[in-house]
This record gives sequence, structure tokens and C-alpha cells, in this order.
Amino acid sequence: MSGKPKLHYFNGRGRMEPIRWLLAAAGVEFEESYLEKKEDLTKLRKDGSLLFQQVPMVEIDGMKLVQTRAILNYIATKYNLYGKDLKERALIDMYVEGLFDLNELLMMHVYLPADQQDQNFANMMDKAENRYFPVFEKVLKDHGKDFLVGNQLSKADVQLLEVILMVEEDKPDILAKFPLLQSFKARISNIPTIKKFLQPGSQRKPPTRPEEPTCKGNSSVIRMYIIKHRMP
Amino acid sequence: MSGKPKLHYFNGRGRMEPIRWLLAAAGVEFEESYLEKKEDLTKLRKDGSLLFQQVPMVEIDGMKLVQTRAILNYIATKYNLYGKDLKERALIDMYVEGLFDLNELLMMHVYLPADQQDQNFANMMDKAENRYFPVFEKVLKDHGKDFLVGNQLSKADVQLLEVILMVEEDKPDILAKFPLLQSFKARISNIPTIKKFLQPGSQRKPPTRPEEPTCKGNSSVIRMYIIKHRMP
Repeated sequence: MSGKPKLHYFNGRGRMEPIRWLLAAAGVEFEESYLEKKEDLTKLRKDGSLLFQQVPMVEIDGMKLVQTRAILNYIATKYNLYGKDLKERALIDMYVEGLFDLNELLMMHVYLPADQQDQNFANMMDKAENRYFPVFEKVLKDHGKDFLVGNQLSKADVQLLEVILMVEEDKPDILAKFPLLQSFKARISNIPTIKKFLQPGSQRKPPTRPEEPTCKGNSSVIRMYIIKHRMP
Repeated sequence: MSGKPKLHYFNGRGRMEPIRWLLAAAGVEFEESYLEKKEDLTKLRKDGSLLFQQVPMVEIDGMKLVQTRAILNYIATKYNLYGKDLKERALIDMYVEGLFDLNELLMMHVYLPADQQDQNFANMMDKAENRYFPVFEKVLKDHGKDFLVGNQLSKADVQLLEVILMVEEDKPDILAKFPLLQSFKARISNIPTIKKFLQPGSQRKPPTRPEEPTCKGNSSVIRMYIIKHRMP
């Protein structure tokens, strides 16, 4: 056994991508086992590896952790990315939960029926621009520090950068009205572990685009199955 | 100022009820401010009290906390209901996240269109009986202790009892096949703080039943608005 965490998910972003980001930011090397067919998921279920029959699942420190937030909390605590006290952690939790809400919209977008995509796109860009990003711009402005909480890197910074880059894929000028988020993006992207993760060839996954030919086979079916059926 | 936490939400369960449960279990007295009309929500938004424009919001220790999980994590840490170390917390997080998934189904059920209710009811009872409750029955069986994690009360026990009682409201015999969950329910219900919360006249809220006449007015509108629009 290598001792590296092992991630079980499909070969795409979905609910595993924030975990890949956080491990990478912490400088932790990890392995991945991709679910390519529905049978791969069935096998994990049958051998008792999935507490609630769902992925993401991460083997780490002798445990088989499931549920995105549980996995992120574990990694963040272990690698000191979760603030220094109770109040800092409350801020980090609040910021991260807002980012989860926005991320949920982004993640489900490509799986919506065609006739709902335009409305959903407008809604998620509106929420990014008028609900979520202004909050983070104001946080940075009010305290004038480099990081969202406690002047040190936390999982909130990592998840915010991840979400900014995702939104920019759909709307490149989304940060036009947010100068502090622009410098935040440049600053966090330049942290060595994160800079490495942003370079080609890393374990970062490309955007999920079901309309691409490569996504029309088994892989696309398992992606949609996993994302949609994660909710019970 | 009384020093008691103040909860801002509608006068019903929704996303605040697990917070009421956890405070009650911790023996913390709290006050509530109910949103009765859409204008009540607008007012909170305008005065900057809601970080992401959403409730639940809890005023506690000089902060205005939002996002259910952030609030629960804060209370659980402060009142020692979150395990004694990193691994215990990972278990608690995993269990709680599974319960959130099941709770989401239960919470949204009454707001579904009539033609989807039967299917959703069957699905959520299937998930309770075949996905979630067997996990907790097995956890209790495997370690033989009184509580889910670390042999002391945690937020996982509190949320499990809350969900068991909610499912029983719809299907009274749901625990028939789970003898250890039956004794767990009796045991946790008998903890003095929780026993008090379960008695009539406590701040525990009744089931949300939109079909009742009292729910057809403004109150029902604001409930549905808050629950549905919590997602961005």
C-alpha cells in the first residue's frame, strides 16, 4: 500500500473535484480509481465500501470516507486548512456552504433538459454576480487581508478559487466588477501547490460537457447516474 | 440583550428544525423571531443580516450565522457534541450527511406536485428502510455502545433521533426491522434535555402540512418560498 489517499469516482469533476482541489492545495499526492461502467459502482457497493451506496469515496488513513463535506472537513482539519478557532471555522463553514450552493447549480447545469438550460444559465450567472461574488469581494475589502479568513489559507480560499475558475469557463468576464476577487484569483493561483495543480497534466479534471462525442458512451451514462443519484 | 441565541426562520420545521433540536439537546435556551410575510425576509435582507440573502439565520455570540451546516457545526463544537478527535468527527460528519440527504427528501415531499407525491413517498421510505436505517442499525450492532460515535452523545445521535421521529410520522412501523434503533430511540429520547424538548409546549415544531387550512395563507407562501429558494 502506497499510503496515498485513493479517490473513487468517475473520471470527471462532479462531487469529487473539490476534494481533488483540497488535496492538491495541501500538497498531498493521491491516486484515483475511475468508475467507468455501472458495474464498477455495483462492485464497490457489494463489497461494502460505500456507507450509503454512493460515491465520492476516499480511502485515507485506513478509512473509507464518503460524503463530500465529511471528506473535505477531514482533509481540511488534518492539513490545517480550517482556521485556528471556533469562530474562524464558523466563517469558513458559512463561506464554503454558499460556494456549495452555487457549485450545485453549475454542476447540474449540463444535465438539465435543453429547454431549461438558458433559464438556468441566466439564474446561475445572476447568483454568481449578484449574490455570491459580492459577498467575497466585501469580505476581502473589509479586512484587507490576502485570504478570506484569519489571514491564512483555508479550504474557503481553495473552494472560492475553484468556483471562480468554473464560472469563468462559462462567462470569462464574470470578475469584471470585482477587482479584489481578480487579485485574489491571481494570488491564490500562484501558491506553489495550487499553481502546480493548474498546469496541464495535473489531476484536475476538464469541464463536464455531455454534448462532446466522448461523453456519449458509457462514461457519460455513469457520470449522469452518479451525479443525479447521489441525492437519495 | 438576553444572551440567548435568537433564531430567524418561519414558524415551522424546514432547515431550522435540526438547529432547534441541537440547541435543545445541548440544554441551551433560545429565542425565535418568525418570518410571517415576505416583507419580513426582505427586511432582514436589506439590513445586511443575511450573508447570502437566505435563512436560517441564528444570532449567537455576537455573530449572525447562516447556512444550516455552519450553524450546526458551531453549536456542536461549542457544546461538545462533535466527537473527541479527527476520526470521530469524520464518522459524525458522514452519518450526519447521510441524514441530511434523507431529510432533504422528507422536507421537500409536501411541496411536490400532487402527481409526484406517491412516487416520492415510496422512494423516501425505501431509502429510509433500505439505505439509511440499516447503516445506523449496523453501526450500533458492531460497536455495541449506546451512542453512534465514541460512546458519548454527538450531533449525529440528535439528528438520527430527529429523522427517525419524522419518518415515523409518515410510517409508524418503520423501525419494525431495526431492534437496535428502537432501543436507541427510547434511550436518546430519555436524555433529560431531549425528553423536555419532546414534551408538548416545547419549541419543537409540528409536521409541515401545506394542505391544512392554516397553511394556505401568507404563512404557507413564505414557507414554500424560503424552502424552495434556499437553493440558489
